[in-house]
Amino acid sequence: MSYFDNFIKANQAYVDLHGTAHLPLKPKTHVAIVTCMDSRLHVAPALGLALGDAHILRNAGGRVTDDVIRSLVISEQQLGTSEIVVLHHTDCGAQTFTNAEFTEQLKRNLAVDVRGQDFLPFTDIEESVREDVALLKNSPLIPEDIIISGAIYDVDTGRVREVK
Amino acid sequence: MSYFDNFIKANQAYVDLHGTAHLPLKPKTHVAIVTCMDSRLHVAPALGLALGDAHILRNAGGRVTDDVIRSLVISEQQLGTSEIVVLHHTDCGAQTFTNAEFTEQLKRNLAVDVRGQDFLPFTDIEESVREDVALLKNSPLIPEDIIISGAIYDVDTGRVREVK
Repeated sequence: MSYFDNFIKANQAYVDLHGTAHLPLKPKTHVAIVTCMDSRLHVAPALGLALGDAHILRNAGGRVTDDVIRSLVISEQQLGTSEIVVLHHTDCGAQTFTNAEFTEQLKRNLAVDVRGQDFLPFTDIEESVREDVALLKNSPLIPEDIIISGAIYDVDTGRVREVK
Repeated sequence: MSYFDNFIKANQAYVDLHGTAHLPLKPKTHVAIVTCMDSRLHVAPALGLALGDAHILRNAGGRVTDDVIRSLVISEQQLGTSEIVVLHHTDCGAQTFTNAEFTEQLKRNLAVDVRGQDFLPFTDIEESVREDVALLKNSPLIPEDIIISGAIYDVDTGRVREVK
């Protein structure tokens, strides 16, 4: 039982609405948003983004990793973005485990030894935002004039509030 | 000039529409989608996803990296997903450079030496999808019974087609 066929069916209706239009490769607002993969966060409507407006980067937790830095460097150097928003959220899956527990679980369930790997869990959501904003501010690959903000999305209300 | 304040303003209208509702942490369709950060791809409407339906992972190119594997392991082991879709797209920013050129550019613009780092550019979009599907199928961290599909999104028409 695959769900993929349902996506293809739903996409047919979307294609009718979309029509044919070529938008520029470079995002209109010059913003890149770094956020979580969580299913209850639909970034575009939550922030009022139209098609073509902003880069959206998502991983478990919305954490700033080497891969996020790789993507942001491409975003900035090739595609003209000059502002970054780090957006974490309430009730995050990254708050449901510790590295030690998760390492044990992977050994038990997958017979794989991942000792030493950081799966980037966190407990305090404001702290995780501040940590990731600091990682960006300290990265030699992110120019100093890039504007960086941190924020939290509430999955129950849809509200975004800034983290200073 | 920051764009962040505009997002906060737009979000106020979204909050009114959203109301208060607690959806489960685990995605309803049990699907995780791996795709690109491109601004012209709004994943939820393009695939008919409602809030709470699916995990959405995004980076430059929609490439399967260590960070994507980290996120997918959390998605599967902690949050119950059992299907993955790799979705690349036409006119991708990852097709606009080579590693050699980009390394030179970063040295020139940022005075940073990133020699040896792979920024994961690609030329053939079907090949990049197949490569990334193969990476998932060969990963010891992704169980063999996980359903994996590959697809391409056309940014001009909004159409998604499967890559076999």
